[in-house]
Amino acid sequence: MAVGLNEPGELCAVAGVKLASVEAGIRYQGRSDLVLMELCEGATTAAVFTQSKCCAAPVTIAKAHLSQTEARALLINAGNANAVTGELGLANAMKSCAALAKHLGFATEAVLPFSTGVIGEQLNMPALLGGIEQGVSSLSEDNWLPAAEAIMTTDTVAKAISKKIEINGRVVTITGMAKGSGMICPDMATMLAYVATDAQIDQDNLRKLLVRGTDKSFNRITVDSDTSTNDALVLIATGQSGVEVGAGDKAFRDALNEVLIHLATAIIRDAEGATKFVKISANKGANQADCRAVAYSIAHSPLVKTALFASDPNWGRILMALGKAPAQQLELSKVDIRIGDVSLIEQGEPAPSYTEEHGKAVFEQEEITIEITLNQGDDDFHVWTSDLSHDYVSINADYRS
Amino acid sequence: MAVGLNEPGELCAVAGVKLASVEAGIRYQGRSDLVLMELCEGATTAAVFTQSKCCAAPVTIAKAHLSQTEARALLINAGNANAVTGELGLANAMKSCAALAKHLGFATEAVLPFSTGVIGEQLNMPALLGGIEQGVSSLSEDNWLPAAEAIMTTDTVAKAISKKIEINGRVVTITGMAKGSGMICPDMATMLAYVATDAQIDQDNLRKLLVRGTDKSFNRITVDSDTSTNDALVLIATGQSGVEVGAGDKAFRDALNEVLIHLATAIIRDAEGATKFVKISANKGANQADCRAVAYSIAHSPLVKTALFASDPNWGRILMALGKAPAQQLELSKVDIRIGDVSLIEQGEPAPSYTEEHGKAVFEQEEITIEITLNQGDDDFHVWTSDLSHDYVSINADYRS
Repeated sequence: MAVGLNEPGELCAVAGVKLASVEAGIRYQGRSDLVLMELCEGATTAAVFTQSKCCAAPVTIAKAHLSQTEARALLINAGNANAVTGELGLANAMKSCAALAKHLGFATEAVLPFSTGVIGEQLNMPALLGGIEQGVSSLSEDNWLPAAEAIMTTDTVAKAISKKIEINGRVVTITGMAKGSGMICPDMATMLAYVATDAQIDQDNLRKLLVRGTDKSFNRITVDSDTSTNDALVLIATGQSGVEVGAGDKAFRDALNEVLIHLATAIIRDAEGATKFVKISANKGANQADCRAVAYSIAHSPLVKTALFASDPNWGRILMALGKAPAQQLELSKVDIRIGDVSLIEQGEPAPSYTEEHGKAVFEQEEITIEITLNQGDDDFHVWTSDLSHDYVSINADYRS
Repeated sequence: MAVGLNEPGELCAVAGVKLASVEAGIRYQGRSDLVLMELCEGATTAAVFTQSKCCAAPVTIAKAHLSQTEARALLINAGNANAVTGELGLANAMKSCAALAKHLGFATEAVLPFSTGVIGEQLNMPALLGGIEQGVSSLSEDNWLPAAEAIMTTDTVAKAISKKIEINGRVVTITGMAKGSGMICPDMATMLAYVATDAQIDQDNLRKLLVRGTDKSFNRITVDSDTSTNDALVLIATGQSGVEVGAGDKAFRDALNEVLIHLATAIIRDAEGATKFVKISANKGANQADCRAVAYSIAHSPLVKTALFASDPNWGRILMALGKAPAQQLELSKVDIRIGDVSLIEQGEPAPSYTEEHGKAVFEQEEITIEITLNQGDDDFHVWTSDLSHDYVSINADYRS
């Protein structure tokens, strides 16, 4: 049950990006689990990947290919992460790139592979190669929604969004999709996410837009503090609109960040077992690192998360998580805390106006904000997270994911 | 349901330490919730406390008193943490110290206060002061078990142990008790724990024994990564046996560490909702920090903990948690992993001999070891932890704790 998240609205084609989704039978039966994406000549591509030291074979190969030549195709499978699969895993990822490249007439290095699913199992290569062959004939610019559905694993809702903006009197389109629901605490990247625009953006500007946008979106979400071996976020600019955009273009940057934040928060709204969507801000800190430490300490606390699930304003746990945060400049006697529109703590002590009823009214809502004001400086940071419910335990204990 | 943990066996009196437990009605009804401890003249006392920046009023005062004079009495209540209670909380803690001091004829500074329970509520002072008056008449050296029972909160089993050793032909006794079950990830300290011996140990040696012992016991346990505002571990040496002991005395140190490790692991065996008792070792690391990062990354992962609850050898999650560990020197291709007596990963790849049946047989046991060999150096570290079960969520979501 996603929190305040509906099926995607209308998704707009991005000229220069064709997609296909296939029921390849890699792991799942009766649903699509493979996506092909073909990019036009001249498209620029930038990506950020998981920082995991146990990163998956496709991550290693996608990074290498991206540094070697222009990307012309993406190959994405759900159901099997191809992680901790050794030499054979690398060989299989290469083999699947080569197969798609051959069908489309590109060099193998022009194909970027991505996988998501169970860790530690070898890919079902006959199914994957069969799926590639099947998919190349159905590539179309209108397939964003079926593609967003095909990359889902424990997701309950497909995650995708389109945005059109006018720049210098011409229309530019941005469309993106993402998957992810658990094992979410991206570190410079996230679960699988793909965003394309028909703006014309050179490699340097594209990279800047991606890195800055990631910092405001996917690097501010956590479900369970666990970082995937397969995280990747890819940004593609096809240039087909003829509109040139730089990293400093505010209108485009705002629209892109809106798409990235929508996709990142959609993952939290659809977090495994989530019943709450929570924004935790740490404001007026001495520096970014302190604000980040405070926000994540609260967002990762199992005791805070179970209190959120219970709709119980057990605010002592927020203070507990604040107290253990590895922040350099933090003095309880300076701290103010608000939950929703209610003042909870003023200068380190319970606010005189606070009542249990006020707290209960806030914690019973599906969307909750917790705002810590450190009063140490001018920096701030926020993170979006979910609660810890029985369903989170069930999803991750009762089934192999 | 504690894992492999029974009610304490026979507890030996420690000459020079008298205890009393009282049904003070501070929060609970029909059970004891207040403990007084009186120490003989000449006893030495050392303590480590929570590093939380939101530490409770009694922590602030116990630290101050300990630095001012010899401790002659301890006052411990369960049910209310007296944390985030501002000036009034500090005043109440002082007032309760003064009351006990007056009854026993000591200075207020000779009393150390300790509290555990709900955060953010003021103490019920009439109940506390009445309990103190009631308790002073029943102080006795034989009250360790009732005291261990009185300090329990969500604990299901009282935690205490005695050990006798012979040093130079004379018998030395060590008896300790602890409470704790959730909000457990001590940082230089732990939940409440009190260990006393009749050995004669000067302040400097006592402090060394405490700090080194803590590092091998309470600083190696985690239930949920959450650090309490009230953690404290107190070590008392009454000297009544007439046996002088230094920090370098191996026999005493080993016996003391055995008591500390018993109490620390008892907390994990009785962790909230625990169905498993798990030891996670990181061996042959380049340094202690790397080993610690790896062991805690796995121990804190909600996905590893739900797989343990499910008895599901979903070992990809162990690799995921290894991959996100903030270790400096970690190469997957050098890593070996064993679960129980089964080889799982050899040089970063699944061991050829490993089968799902082998893994299942290990994960179905109540006590599990996970051993990561980094092959980067000579350091090692281990941590004890529990699983993440439906009962953990129920205990922390369904009730205010």
